[in-house]
Amino acid sequence: MLKYHLGWLDDKGKYQERTVGKRLRPTLCLFACEAVGGDYHRALPIAAAIELIHNFSLIHDDIQDGDIQRHHRPTVWYLWGKEKALYAGNAMHILANLALKRVKGVSYPLQLQLTHLLEESCLEMIIGQFLDVSYESRMDISVEAYLEMIKKKTAALIACSLKSGAMLGTNATGVIDAFYHCGQNLGIAFQIKDDILGIWGDEVETGKPLASDIKRKKKSLPIVYALERAQGKVKEEMKDIYQGEIGEREVTAVLGILNCLHAHQYAQRLVEEYSQRAVVGLKEVKLSSRAQREMEEIVHFLVGRRF
Amino acid sequence: MLKYHLGWLDDKGKYQERTVGKRLRPTLCLFACEAVGGDYHRALPIAAAIELIHNFSLIHDDIQDGDIQRHHRPTVWYLWGKEKALYAGNAMHILANLALKRVKGVSYPLQLQLTHLLEESCLEMIIGQFLDVSYESRMDISVEAYLEMIKKKTAALIACSLKSGAMLGTNATGVIDAFYHCGQNLGIAFQIKDDILGIWGDEVETGKPLASDIKRKKKSLPIVYALERAQGKVKEEMKDIYQGEIGEREVTAVLGILNCLHAHQYAQRLVEEYSQRAVVGLKEVKLSSRAQREMEEIVHFLVGRRF
Repeated sequence: MLKYHLGWLDDKGKYQERTVGKRLRPTLCLFACEAVGGDYHRALPIAAAIELIHNFSLIHDDIQDGDIQRHHRPTVWYLWGKEKALYAGNAMHILANLALKRVKGVSYPLQLQLTHLLEESCLEMIIGQFLDVSYESRMDISVEAYLEMIKKKTAALIACSLKSGAMLGTNATGVIDAFYHCGQNLGIAFQIKDDILGIWGDEVETGKPLASDIKRKKKSLPIVYALERAQGKVKEEMKDIYQGEIGEREVTAVLGILNCLHAHQYAQRLVEEYSQRAVVGLKEVKLSSRAQREMEEIVHFLVGRRF
Repeated sequence: MLKYHLGWLDDKGKYQERTVGKRLRPTLCLFACEAVGGDYHRALPIAAAIELIHNFSLIHDDIQDGDIQRHHRPTVWYLWGKEKALYAGNAMHILANLALKRVKGVSYPLQLQLTHLLEESCLEMIIGQFLDVSYESRMDISVEAYLEMIKKKTAALIACSLKSGAMLGTNATGVIDAFYHCGQNLGIAFQIKDDILGIWGDEVETGKPLASDIKRKKKSLPIVYALERAQGKVKEEMKDIYQGEIGEREVTAVLGILNCLHAHQYAQRLVEEYSQRAVVGLKEVKLSSRAQREMEEIVHFLVGRRF
């Protein structure tokens, strides 16, 4: 089940070569290690651990949301049932932690620090997921509260990726902290871009149905912004829609309101703003020109991606 | 939610003094530490971590089984919904791992060993839970396969309790291993006793409805034994019942079959046999007479308990 989820096997247990997911987090981890002058090979077990943590959370999220597809393939729970999928997710969580045993050539204190960093970031992520679910039934979420939520739900693990990679390459705390903050901003940008794609993304490219986040009443950034920004009748209409059943007609109405309020542009502006902060934050670190270019490529991909 | 589950708060968030659960695992951990001459205070964070792992698994199990009561109180998912309960369970899992940060005065390698032991035992537990669920729909589970399953599902964490406690008090590997094997046998005995109570236990004392394991088609030891042992028509009847809906009439029929096959006595004999093995295994360790007496008390409680 775990190998299937990671795209290594098909649902009959047959080997397949297929990449599912962007592998953003491990890439960032290896990048950070190399950017500070470390040998990225040493960071591989941590990069793997972080990707496994991310995937453990996806297996559980698919159960929670009842999603039947991910990356154009049936989800784990849909194939094997929710009970087994829950245990499979728990097992992947532990395999992530145990992957850290394979980090070689680091001191015991650093090994323990990495273990705790991974678990603490994972805990933040779960608190963020919990808040996200709690917000679904609420109408009073501010953009500020939303940003705090995604800082935990998404940015914590991305910040952990950059920080842990840097920790394997240097022990300069200023540099390590800079990577951490870069990751926080990158993570926020990444999540808002995800929110944009969850409403306006192309079905074929994202692998998710059109306007899926509206249908499931996700309080994603464009919606939070619209609820905060709308006035009078429009605000009432939004609230009414989000307190009832959402069908095709309601989706169209919400898309119309978001359009009037320029919610798409607002969200994209935030993506660019937080991406910029991420880049600027690393300026002080004095990266090599190659690392600098790679960082800009990552950000460019992130801001422009369509999946 | 976590404090509620542990019995520290009521469902309104008000402080209450109430002990829920037997606290068997942490007790065993502290016992082992002291029995090998260690100061049990040092083992407290590990004892707490193990109890948290156990409780994380209970929160998830209650979701899986749809149980609405535990220890005579509404379950976490029943009060807060399955989504939040799943995240709460995940959070408790991490808090367990992080509790190990509080172990003081041990070397870094030992701290890492304890971290890995806890996670590896937890992984074994989850594999056991997974097998348990897989067995529910099967009719061909042998007593041997069942024993292998509970060795993981239940005995792994109990063995971890005794082993980790011993590790804090001594570094004699022979002694540590003896405690581990003692825990495995004790865990097997404990689970079989649980199976007995799940069928013949008193509703008031166990906090679970009468014959609850029959109603939910659990392949617990008495059932596995009966399916293996029954012949001809009786075997067919058992199979038919377990392949259909189980109502009051079917429960009565199953209880009748178990009675004819002396399944209760068989199971109780196994409880006593594995308890004896647990005690004998520790004989080589040369415990103090006090520790010896305490061990016998634990076993006596375990074999005779009615809840």
